[in-house]
Amino acid sequence: MRLITDMKDKRITLSHGAGGKLMHNLIEEIFKRHFSNPLLDIFDDSSVFSSLPEKEICFTTDSYTVQPIFFPGGDIGKLSICGTVNDLSVCGAKPFYISVSFIIEEGFEIEKLERIVISMKKAAEEADVKIITGDTKVVEKGKADKIFINTSGVGFKKRSLLLGRDFIKEEDVIIINGNIGEHGLAVIKERKGLEFDVEIESDCAPLNKMIEEIIESGAKIKFMRDPTRGGIATTLNEIVEGKNFGIILYEEKIPIGENVKSLCEILGFDPLYIANEGKVIIVAERKDADKILNKMRKNKYGRKAEIIGEVVGKPEGKVLLKTEIGSTRIIDMPTGEMFPRIC
Amino acid sequence: MRLITDMKDKRITLSHGAGGKLMHNLIEEIFKRHFSNPLLDIFDDSSVFSSLPEKEICFTTDSYTVQPIFFPGGDIGKLSICGTVNDLSVCGAKPFYISVSFIIEEGFEIEKLERIVISMKKAAEEADVKIITGDTKVVEKGKADKIFINTSGVGFKKRSLLLGRDFIKEEDVIIINGNIGEHGLAVIKERKGLEFDVEIESDCAPLNKMIEEIIESGAKIKFMRDPTRGGIATTLNEIVEGKNFGIILYEEKIPIGENVKSLCEILGFDPLYIANEGKVIIVAERKDADKILNKMRKNKYGRKAEIIGEVVGKPEGKVLLKTEIGSTRIIDMPTGEMFPRIC
Repeated sequence: MRLITDMKDKRITLSHGAGGKLMHNLIEEIFKRHFSNPLLDIFDDSSVFSSLPEKEICFTTDSYTVQPIFFPGGDIGKLSICGTVNDLSVCGAKPFYISVSFIIEEGFEIEKLERIVISMKKAAEEADVKIITGDTKVVEKGKADKIFINTSGVGFKKRSLLLGRDFIKEEDVIIINGNIGEHGLAVIKERKGLEFDVEIESDCAPLNKMIEEIIESGAKIKFMRDPTRGGIATTLNEIVEGKNFGIILYEEKIPIGENVKSLCEILGFDPLYIANEGKVIIVAERKDADKILNKMRKNKYGRKAEIIGEVVGKPEGKVLLKTEIGSTRIIDMPTGEMFPRIC
Repeated sequence: MRLITDMKDKRITLSHGAGGKLMHNLIEEIFKRHFSNPLLDIFDDSSVFSSLPEKEICFTTDSYTVQPIFFPGGDIGKLSICGTVNDLSVCGAKPFYISVSFIIEEGFEIEKLERIVISMKKAAEEADVKIITGDTKVVEKGKADKIFINTSGVGFKKRSLLLGRDFIKEEDVIIINGNIGEHGLAVIKERKGLEFDVEIESDCAPLNKMIEEIIESGAKIKFMRDPTRGGIATTLNEIVEGKNFGIILYEEKIPIGENVKSLCEILGFDPLYIANEGKVIIVAERKDADKILNKMRKNKYGRKAEIIGEVVGKPEGKVLLKTEIGSTRIIDMPTGEMFPRIC
């Protein structure tokens, strides 16, 4: 692969964002070259595609400000594709089209920009989505932190697939596809330069294929959500909020690596509140739990899938954790300071 | 209208972006309250809508980093809606759905955030588009400049409406809907605190209604583009780039206010290169020019519409300006430093 070291400029200047020749070169040399596909029209500001009959359209957006921009298991580019792919997937849609918009700090190394772009390209290929439109802005040195990326996404959902918190009922099960806490801890460890002898990688991954397989299996899914910022504790609280049901979690069933356990002990974190970027929480009918677990465990992103809890009638609107020693405690929505810039 | 001064916090903190209770309050109190519509589901990360039969979907994205964030005639919020609405409109689509994503610097005043959000709401109402999904990130003080906004947009275009540079032919006319250079100069004047005795306001406006009226008139449009960053000089150069035709502009026909003329003289700027945010350049068949001008001039955003030039066979790939004194000069794509953070 020809790398951009061919380009005369090694760093982003304000002119790269000013709409003139340098910006056009950047678009041609970095964005168009790596993101190339028949629909891509970064130059033409917007892109046109056909809709599918009998489908609804899903639309989502996310800005990524993760710091540091490179971390074990991923970087801001991979994250920006996977995050938006997963947001569409958990609403039941097959993700198709992605827009990318960069805000770049003056002086940012073009070599790093290209590494990020290549990483986006790879993630988009794995997820089988097309980057079809984009935008670049450059701000003065000190007015942004290296690079921020927004991705928005469009996907198509079968009309017949009805998902929503309203469908959730007592005795439904809560399923997750694997170990929790890895993304947040990998980022924090890298950011703080912690030298503990514990290996940890972000779980950042596109989950759309796995989720499509589960949907196609015919399993009766009620609701899905990717437990990113605020971890599974926050996602589960969002699920029960204002509803006439609660959730009980079984601590011993929650998949968690020894590395996450150790780091959380050392740092005093609760893994339930740590961000994931390759996890999905599925609420489903109990009778279909095995069908879902089977599909998950056959996929490389779901080998450690488990039923981690169930929906209960009381207490309403609360998430309870049943600990390994048999006691029960309430898992609240986080209030105070958590970890900024994890995604 | 109840303003957010009710909220206990007066400034954005990192916790407002951390996924917990404070972030949920912010979403409820500021975003959901002002942007409310039946489809809005900022909380649910993505939004679902139905597609229209016999239409193609257009998808666009833009990040806004304008500095200062408030300027005569608009602010970053109004700009972020109008810019994306116009990007969809010039590709021939009727804009429908908008996503909004905020990157906010820690310490930013919530009162200012609310002014921006209200301004977005008003622009969205005027353009008749719905804000249906969103995202918020907060970064540490000094890691962003107050606020950056990304908007992405989805619109629907009739399949039968074919627009593109390939349809442009010799003798087609170049039409603009009014005075050039106002947005860029209003922002620069405000940014630099220039005290000249010249009133100037950004032309920032949603052009979708005017453009829809023109399309519905049946006029044979070949191509449209909004001349933002880099002004009409850049847009016209993008139109002729690599093509077997050129464009001649008639200087005396280009609508320009006395205020823009004076400021450009004082500051040494060329108004052809200054950004617009409420202008569209239309390339059309000459026989339909009057139809287009009539529609434009009946709309408040097109009163000063003019035919400013025409497509010529030679020189290929160039934009020429015929000056008022009869000489001719080449209008090039800008190369060096222009004005960063105009949009």
